[in-house]
Amino acid sequence: NNNVINVNKTDKNISACQNGRVESTNQQYRTIQDPASQRLTWYKPPLTVLVIKKVRDVAVLSPFVQLVQWLIEEKRMVVFVEAQVMEDSLLDQYNAFSTIKDKLMTFRDGKDDLTDKIDFIICLGGDGTLLYASHLFQESVPPVMAFHLGSLGFLTPFQFENFQEQVNNVLEGNAALTLRSRLRCIVMKKDQKGKGDEAQGKKPTNLLVLNEVVVDRGPSPYLSNIDLFLDGKHITSVQGDGVIVSTPTGSTAYAVAAGASMIHPSVPAIMVTPICPHSLSFRPIVVPAGVELKIALSPDSRNSSYVCFDGRHHQELKHGDSLRVTTSIYPVPSICALDQISDWFDSLAECLHWNVRKKQKHLD
Amino acid sequence: NNNVINVNKTDKNISACQNGRVESTNQQYRTIQDPASQRLTWYKPPLTVLVIKKVRDVAVLSPFVQLVQWLIEEKRMVVFVEAQVMEDSLLDQYNAFSTIKDKLMTFRDGKDDLTDKIDFIICLGGDGTLLYASHLFQESVPPVMAFHLGSLGFLTPFQFENFQEQVNNVLEGNAALTLRSRLRCIVMKKDQKGKGDEAQGKKPTNLLVLNEVVVDRGPSPYLSNIDLFLDGKHITSVQGDGVIVSTPTGSTAYAVAAGASMIHPSVPAIMVTPICPHSLSFRPIVVPAGVELKIALSPDSRNSSYVCFDGRHHQELKHGDSLRVTTSIYPVPSICALDQISDWFDSLAECLHWNVRKKQKHLD
Amino acid sequence: NNNVINVNKTDKNISACQNGRVESTNQQYRTIQDPASQRLTWYKPPLTVLVIKKVRDVAVLSPFVQLVQWLIEEKRMVVFVEAQVMEDSLLDQYNAFSTIKDKLMTFRDGKDDLTDKIDFIICLGGDGTLLYASHLFQESVPPVMAFHLGSLGFLTPFQFENFQEQVNNVLEGNAALTLRSRLRCIVMKKDQKGKGDEAQGKKPTNLLVLNEVVVDRGPSPYLSNIDLFLDGKHITSVQGDGVIVSTPTGSTAYAVAAGASMIHPSVPAIMVTPICPHSLSFRPIVVPAGVELKIALSPDSRNSSYVCFDGRHHQELKHGDSLRVTTSIYPVPSICALDQISDWFDSLAECLHWNVRKKQKHLD
Amino acid sequence: NNNVINVNKTDKNISACQNGRVESTNQQYRTIQDPASQRLTWYKPPLTVLVIKKVRDVAVLSPFVQLVQWLIEEKRMVVFVEAQVMEDSLLDQYNAFSTIKDKLMTFRDGKDDLTDKIDFIICLGGDGTLLYASHLFQESVPPVMAFHLGSLGFLTPFQFENFQEQVNNVLEGNAALTLRSRLRCIVMKKDQKGKGDEAQGKKPTNLLVLNEVVVDRGPSPYLSNIDLFLDGKHITSVQGDGVIVSTPTGSTAYAVAAGASMIHPSVPAIMVTPICPHSLSFRPIVVPAGVELKIALSPDSRNSSYVCFDGRHHQELKHGDSLRVTTSIYPVPSICALDQISDWFDSLAECLHWNVRKKQKHLD
Repeated sequence: NNNVINVNKTDKNISACQNGRVESTNQQYRTIQDPASQRLTWYKPPLTVLVIKKVRDVAVLSPFVQLVQWLIEEKRMVVFVEAQVMEDSLLDQYNAFSTIKDKLMTFRDGKDDLTDKIDFIICLGGDGTLLYASHLFQESVPPVMAFHLGSLGFLTPFQFENFQEQVNNVLEGNAALTLRSRLRCIVMKKDQKGKGDEAQGKKPTNLLVLNEVVVDRGPSPYLSNIDLFLDGKHITSVQGDGVIVSTPTGSTAYAVAAGASMIHPSVPAIMVTPICPHSLSFRPIVVPAGVELKIALSPDSRNSSYVCFDGRHHQELKHGDSLRVTTSIYPVPSICALDQISDWFDSLAECLHWNVRKKQKHLD
Repeated sequence: NNNVINVNKTDKNISACQNGRVESTNQQYRTIQDPASQRLTWYKPPLTVLVIKKVRDVAVLSPFVQLVQWLIEEKRMVVFVEAQVMEDSLLDQYNAFSTIKDKLMTFRDGKDDLTDKIDFIICLGGDGTLLYASHLFQESVPPVMAFHLGSLGFLTPFQFENFQEQVNNVLEGNAALTLRSRLRCIVMKKDQKGKGDEAQGKKPTNLLVLNEVVVDRGPSPYLSNIDLFLDGKHITSVQGDGVIVSTPTGSTAYAVAAGASMIHPSVPAIMVTPICPHSLSFRPIVVPAGVELKIALSPDSRNSSYVCFDGRHHQELKHGDSLRVTTSIYPVPSICALDQISDWFDSLAECLHWNVRKKQKHLD
Repeated sequence: NNNVINVNKTDKNISACQNGRVESTNQQYRTIQDPASQRLTWYKPPLTVLVIKKVRDVAVLSPFVQLVQWLIEEKRMVVFVEAQVMEDSLLDQYNAFSTIKDKLMTFRDGKDDLTDKIDFIICLGGDGTLLYASHLFQESVPPVMAFHLGSLGFLTPFQFENFQEQVNNVLEGNAALTLRSRLRCIVMKKDQKGKGDEAQGKKPTNLLVLNEVVVDRGPSPYLSNIDLFLDGKHITSVQGDGVIVSTPTGSTAYAVAAGASMIHPSVPAIMVTPICPHSLSFRPIVVPAGVELKIALSPDSRNSSYVCFDGRHHQELKHGDSLRVTTSIYPVPSICALDQISDWFDSLAECLHWNVRKKQKHLD
Repeated sequence: NNNVINVNKTDKNISACQNGRVESTNQQYRTIQDPASQRLTWYKPPLTVLVIKKVRDVAVLSPFVQLVQWLIEEKRMVVFVEAQVMEDSLLDQYNAFSTIKDKLMTFRDGKDDLTDKIDFIICLGGDGTLLYASHLFQESVPPVMAFHLGSLGFLTPFQFENFQEQVNNVLEGNAALTLRSRLRCIVMKKDQKGKGDEAQGKKPTNLLVLNEVVVDRGPSPYLSNIDLFLDGKHITSVQGDGVIVSTPTGSTAYAVAAGASMIHPSVPAIMVTPICPHSLSFRPIVVPAGVELKIALSPDSRNSSYVCFDGRHHQELKHGDSLRVTTSIYPVPSICALDQISDWFDSLAECLHWNVRKKQKHLD
């Protein structure tokens, strides 16, 4: 298997003074990385492609069939789809689909291991398809090309119209890349400590999120009381509806609704945003990607809280449990339609109407 | 000259997939830098120290004399001060000062070149002393240790009480370091284009800021109309009182007053915050440190705007002029009292009362 | 029964041009009411007093016994308490309580009618006691004097220390009054329309709230989609965690946590505040007290929502149901410790740390 | 002169318990005013009309000529215009204008007294025309009908297209009315105290504003330090760019840009909004219309501040000076295109894009 993302060969870290030079010249300087330097490189042409389509949306069926047929017949690629696609009776109404159906490779989420099998991912539909792709690959993720069908999404920059031309461009390596960082979230249950997992019969939750992990009051009418630790130090306590720990990618999702500033997905950072805090001064904060966050119920909290990962997998967080969050070493390499900067600002305007306004004339 | 900041020998960029490993293992991963890994290292003990004291504040005189006397007599260091210090008649009332006065080295801002002359800086007073130190060193900056005299400042984490012990600790290399990024700001005047600087008799403004550069309406009663470009692309227009381009360090200064989230100074990013924008949806944004921003008056703007650098050096920005902002390769190496994380959260609590609140009991 | 709130005999409405004068003088003007003109007047001295104490808080027991004993023995008043107070074994440990226990009048919430029975209410404990008093009186409410025991609350301005002197002052009529408006909330169930209540065996919910009524997604992980109507017109749709309809009193409760401005309780208005809206431009709004609001699920909403009244009485809001909200004609006459203005700003500072800050010195 | 605004004959104050009823029935209730009850009534048909047009905008010339000609020739009204209109050479290019020019009545701002001369005002252009009308009438204001020419404004709800029909409707009394409160602003100069005005040769500034009065740092680079008093009590100090005291009408102007909630113009209230305050917890506040605000420099303020009234008439506020603000008894009766509620929400959507958003589909 042979696809490679060649991000930046001469990459130097913004937060680094390079020792050698410093010694010889006494110049303490840093090299600032240009985001535009992150580009896709294929060392060998990709052979296998996973196609993920939005579920329960008939508008996506025809594009899906067109795309898969073209990938198989024109591009001679090996196409993977989810097993349940084969059972979708609506797809059988497409003649083209029946001709390619038996050429499709299938897998089942949670059963089949896709590691090292997929060179390239194409998503078709809404932002949820990319969240799902992120969920499927809990370690290294192949480059993802995501098409929106309705209007532009934050995570789906490509429009489907001339998909052949656009996929060809990407396969030829003409594409900028946004490496979207993810957060590793580990829930430590109080009653699992000191016990073997086998005794428990259950592994601790250990998930990567692309947008955010949320701890909130769930169905409880009472405020959450949540303690927040950074690198082992108690930083503050959240009293309110809850707290959002998000990636820069997630800063434009739930976090922005809770009042956060918007962070470009290439910034190596973690955002912490309170939800309806009972303190006028609890402004959101942005911390370096390298820290470790720990979240636990405050000892004086009356209620449990609830954890939710990218809007899924809700579970209770009880007294004594804790959630640990770090930046994962496995980002999602998300292929840009134009480039890192244009794609982001286009999605801000389209999805959030950011600073779309009526120009006011001066008073006369 | 021989002091060296050894930040992180095995530094790998968070935004980089390392090629070699990717090829061999198909693991696309990134190394996430731990902020705690940035620590001060002296290759040879520092010999020269620049002491900057707050001006027009009598409370700083006695600490200043104590510190300078100790540095000269105990530590045998060469101490630089500003020339005007020698003319301060209030200082002459301190006996200790007269005994050391003739051992001081002096310089004049704008006249004498400090490059390669200073190994170490000590600031005494408020945040303004560090802004001044930043201003003095427009290229590489020696490590700075900053004492507050009243209450803790954002940029002045050390308390003066046991200064000898604390300075000794730092000189022995027991200190964490925050590399505070700065912004290079270049004003391009319309009427200078195509003309040699000599013809103009005046160089274009080219300054580094540690907090922020502000473009606002100045004394004009009318709204500013400002165009914002990122890497050459028109991103948006600001209609309002103005716009703040700040470093993460500056996110807790003017930007936070204008509604920004707070960014830890180690995050490699630039923050753009509108001032009282005429658009409900103009939320602040955070972009990667590597981009180039350009700011110019909108063609339909009625008025000039005004540029201001770290609260100083106001100048008019006329039609056709532009301001270019990039992250400088010369950060300010700011020595931590405790560590990067604790220092920042301590200053948030102390200076901004961040999330300081009365715990509300649940309703009965 | 004979207590009377004499608010302002010469009351003229700020929103009224008075016809007579307009006709004769062609002066279109309004009289602006001075909030300080609202004062308590007793036409006959109050005889019956309801004492409400915080539940499940032992710190309130001793003050409660002191107060009740004094009211009975010194002031010769008839004291009402909740029936469950008589069953509290912790109270029986107070000797003084046993001597007065058989003089107490009792009632049971939901069973006994207090209308016309109570001249005066004293609350002892937190803000919850006043919310409870408001709940007990679904029509006209007697004047309420509320003591905090720990720190000052928004609704509990009196400190208990010298309670005798303070109660005497109030009984003598030396007190300013804040008339806290309430909202009448009626839930219309789709399946009750066109059916008699008897057929349903259940009356539609019809409750007064003092703080707010909230419609949110409850335990659902999905966004709420809620339509908002004002005086029958569709005003906007809320997509987010929910929406808060609050009184000015409630503006400093949940609404302020969701980002609202703070409104003095004497302003005749209703506040509508979205909770984490998916729109950057959805700022809270304040509408006149006289409008009628209607809230219903949007036809395209996937999920039910949940309604909650002053943090209690949760119920589901299904497709076709609607919630109607108007300003009640029955405010809560809340007695001020100092006056309308001082009490409010004291509680903002104490409960919300409003604009409590470190004075920043100018940069040197 | 005989036009009358008959707002609401049975007007009862929301903040009033009516004594008589209270005595007899022990029902403490309030009557809540329905905003829809404010309607325009003419006791005699209006005879004189003042037409105000936007200056320096050629697009307004043709509508202006059409309107004035129709008012004179069809409606037989006496039309007043500003004297400078007669000198506008651009208007002379309209043939129709020359035929009516000598029938126009003129006045000069600051020279001629319009009191009791005008029955009706028509504005043509932007929001500035209504601000100008408000400025012209420092006491009672005739009803104002305001047309926008480009897009809908906050203060200009009528579109010009079928102006004859719309003006006829209004003249027939078919119109809802929003009584927009104004603020009386009096600047007390320190050096005028104890001296007669004649000695000074200058009257203290005493102006009504329709939107807001602003106190800010003006051209000074330093923060403002401003003390805020309410009914004589020191409420808080503002440290930041300044403070806005606005009417509800002004809540959607500068105040909303500074972060305020939006208040319907019929709510009897005053809004206080800090501009970029140096305190995270300084949320805007809304106080009852009947209070008196006083603003003065803090004794420790380094700089003067500057006062500005509806964006005009800047003047310095020095140490010892103070600004007093109260709600004026002279509102601006602003005629609605539809009604109070629809007009306001239409302008929020049109001018501020309030909650205009892309509907997000649920994740799949």
